[in-house]
Amino acid sequence: MPDNPTQANGERVLADLNALRAIGAYKSGVHKPTFSEPHARSLEWLAKKLPEAGLSAAVDGIGNVLGTSAKAGPRLLAGSHLESQNYAGWLDGPLGVIYALEAARVLNPDPAVNGAVEVASWCDEEGHFGHFLGSRSYVGAVSEADIDAARDRNNGRTMRQALAQVGLAGRPRLKALRGRYIGYLEAHIEQGETLESSGLKIGVVTSIVGIWQYRITFTGEQNHAGTTRMAIRKDAGLSLARFCVVIDETFPAICGPRTVWTTGRIDLDPGAPSIIPGRAEMLFQIRDADRAVIERLEQRLRAMAREATARGPCSVAVERIRAGAPAMMDASFQDAIEAASAEFAGGKSLRMPSGAGHDAQILATIMPAGMLFVPSIGGISHHWNENTDDADIVTGANVFVETCRKLLAR
Amino acid sequence: MPDNPTQANGERVLADLNALRAIGAYKSGVHKPTFSEPHARSLEWLAKKLPEAGLSAAVDGIGNVLGTSAKAGPRLLAGSHLESQNYAGWLDGPLGVIYALEAARVLNPDPAVNGAVEVASWCDEEGHFGHFLGSRSYVGAVSEADIDAARDRNNGRTMRQALAQVGLAGRPRLKALRGRYIGYLEAHIEQGETLESSGLKIGVVTSIVGIWQYRITFTGEQNHAGTTRMAIRKDAGLSLARFCVVIDETFPAICGPRTVWTTGRIDLDPGAPSIIPGRAEMLFQIRDADRAVIERLEQRLRAMAREATARGPCSVAVERIRAGAPAMMDASFQDAIEAASAEFAGGKSLRMPSGAGHDAQILATIMPAGMLFVPSIGGISHHWNENTDDADIVTGANVFVETCRKLLAR
Repeated sequence: MPDNPTQANGERVLADLNALRAIGAYKSGVHKPTFSEPHARSLEWLAKKLPEAGLSAAVDGIGNVLGTSAKAGPRLLAGSHLESQNYAGWLDGPLGVIYALEAARVLNPDPAVNGAVEVASWCDEEGHFGHFLGSRSYVGAVSEADIDAARDRNNGRTMRQALAQVGLAGRPRLKALRGRYIGYLEAHIEQGETLESSGLKIGVVTSIVGIWQYRITFTGEQNHAGTTRMAIRKDAGLSLARFCVVIDETFPAICGPRTVWTTGRIDLDPGAPSIIPGRAEMLFQIRDADRAVIERLEQRLRAMAREATARGPCSVAVERIRAGAPAMMDASFQDAIEAASAEFAGGKSLRMPSGAGHDAQILATIMPAGMLFVPSIGGISHHWNENTDDADIVTGANVFVETCRKLLAR
Repeated sequence: MPDNPTQANGERVLADLNALRAIGAYKSGVHKPTFSEPHARSLEWLAKKLPEAGLSAAVDGIGNVLGTSAKAGPRLLAGSHLESQNYAGWLDGPLGVIYALEAARVLNPDPAVNGAVEVASWCDEEGHFGHFLGSRSYVGAVSEADIDAARDRNNGRTMRQALAQVGLAGRPRLKALRGRYIGYLEAHIEQGETLESSGLKIGVVTSIVGIWQYRITFTGEQNHAGTTRMAIRKDAGLSLARFCVVIDETFPAICGPRTVWTTGRIDLDPGAPSIIPGRAEMLFQIRDADRAVIERLEQRLRAMAREATARGPCSVAVERIRAGAPAMMDASFQDAIEAASAEFAGGKSLRMPSGAGHDAQILATIMPAGMLFVPSIGGISHHWNENTDDADIVTGANVFVETCRKLLAR
C-alpha cells in the first residue's frame, strides 16, 4: 500500500495515531481531558501536520482546529476530535482526525481529483465542559454566555480559565460558511461488538441516536441510622434503588429494539454510614434513534415518578437536563461508504445505527453527513483498554479515502 | 430550683450548655469536628470548669478530659463527649458532660454525700478518626499503632498531626484504674421520637445496640452507555439497586422487633452519565441489641450475595468492616434512674434500648454502666436542627443528679 500514492498509506496512518497516543499516554490508552496540557499539545501537533496535506491551519477560540484548502472544486469536510474521556482509549477521536488528514494528504495533491478534503478537529466532543461545544460552536449553536457558564466537570474550573491557560482566550470562533461543503464525513471506532462478533470490517452509519438525560431527585428525611425505626423512615436512597428496579422492569416492554438506558451516577446525601439519606440523586440517560420512542419512555418515567411520590414516603422529581435530537445520515453518503467497502473491505460492511453521539450529528444539522465505523476489540470503549486491530485500522483508512474520492467525484 | 443546693441548678445547666454552643456555633447547632479549633477550645473550657466541682482536671494524650476528686468514699464516673458531627446539634454530647459536671457541683461539696462524682469527656465519640477512640483508649483497647493509623475522615490529616496541632502530642494517655469506680453513668439526647411521641421525659436505657458495618462491592463490566446493548450489559449499579431492594424485602421477616439497617453511601465507578458502571459499592449497617439477630441477618446477607453472584451478571462481595458488640446496661443502674424519675419526672420514664452507639457501651466492658435519655424534639439528630425543650433539659438534670446520689448512697 505505501507504494500506491492514490490510496491510504497504512504505515503513515498508524505512525500518526501512535504519535498522538504518546501525548498524554496512560497505560495502553491516553488521559487527555479537554484543555489539559496533553490535549493542547495534540491540537498543536495537528495544526503543524495539516500543511502536509496542503491545508492552512487555524486553531479557534473554542479549541477547534480547521485546515482549509485553496484548491478549486468541491470541498468535503472531514474530522473528529482529539481530547479523550478520563483514562480512556487512544482511538476514540484521533482515528477520525487521522483518517481525514490521510484523505487530504492523498487526494488534495492529486491533480486527478477535482476539489479537496478539509480537516477538522472538534473540541470537547467528550463533554468535559458541555455537549459537543466545538462542533456546536461551528454550526452557530453556542453563545458567549454558554461559554461563560461552562465548567470542567473534573475540577470545576471555568471554560474561560481553561481557554486562557492554553492560550486560546480572545481568539475568534470559526463559523461554518454555508454552501462551502458538499458534506461532512467522520470515521470512528464502533464502541460496541456488532462488527467484531459478525466478522465485519466497516459499519455504515444510518442514524445517530438521540440522547436525553435526566436528573432524578428523591427527597425524604435525613435522620439517625440507629434511633429511627424502620417503620417511620423516609430513606431517599432506598426510594432511588426501588425506582431503578422499576425502570428496569418497565422499560423493556415499551422501548424500541435498540433503545438503551443507563444510570451512570448515584449520590446519597449526606453519604455517611450512620445517617439515613434525606436526599438522593441519580443521572439517568435514554438513547434511541427514534425521537418518538424517547418521548414515550420519558412520559412513562414521569408517570412512575408521580406514582412513587403518591405512594411515598419520599417524593421523586424528574428534570430533563439534555435533549439531543437523533440525526439521520445522508443516504448518498451511506451508498458511497458501502461502495468503497466493496472495493477495499471485501464488502464486509453493515448498515447500522450509532448508539453513541458524535460530532456528525451536529454537522448534520447544516449539511449532508455520513459516518463509518471500524471494529472495536471486545466492544470495549471509554476505557484505556479500548483497541482495534492494526489491519482493521488500515482497512478503515482505505475505505475512508476511497469514500472521500467518490463523494468529491460525484 | 436554684435555691435548693441539693438539686440541679437548671439555670446554671442551661447557661453552661449555651456557653458550649457558642463555641463553634453553626445556625442553631454547632460544627465541632474532633480536634477542630472549637473542639479544642471546648475541652479547655471544661478543664477550667471542673475545679468548680472540687475536681482536678487533666487533658490526656488522646483528648480525653478527666476531673478527679480527693474526697473519700465511693466514686461514680460520669460524662459524655464534646465534639460534634459535622454541622450538627448542640446537645449531642455536651448534655451528658454538663449533667455530670452539675452532679459533681451539687454532690461533691455536700458533706451529707459519701463519695464523689468524677467527670469525663471522651474524645471522638462521633468517629471522625475512628470508633470511640477516647473511651476505648481509657479502657485499654487502643494501641499506639492504632493512633498512628487513624486519619480524619473529613480531610485525611493523621491523628498524630491533629494531636500536635491542638498541643496534645506526647502527653500520656489516662487509663482506667480498676476498682476505682462503682460504675459509669451517661446522659444523652434520645435521637429518636419514642419519648416525645409518648409524652415521656426519661428513657432508662436497657442495652446499647451492636453496630455491624459492611462494604458490599458489585463487580460488572464498565462500558459505553450508548453502544452496549441492554442484553449484554453487566451494570454494577443496577445490581446494587436490586440488592438494596432484596434486602428491604427479606430482612423484615427475619429481623428482631427493633433491628434497623441502613445503606448510607453508594458509589458508582466511574460515575459518569455516559458510562455503564463496572463497579459499585455501598456502605451497609445493621444494628440490634441482640448479637444473635445480627449474626442471623449477616448470614442471610452473605447468602443473598452468593445467590446474586450465581444469578449474574455481576458478582457481589460482602466484607464486614466493623463489629461493635451490643452492651447491656447494669440492672441496678436502671432501677436507680427509674426511682429518680419517679421523684423528679413524675414517673414519666420508659425502659428502652439505645439504637445509637455511646461511650457507655465501652465503659460497660470494665464496670457497671447506665444511661438515661431526654426527649429529642421531632426525633431529629445529627443535624443542626436537633433540639430538646429547656424544661426537659432541666428535668433530665434533676433526674441525673438524683440518680448519682442514689448510686453513691447504696
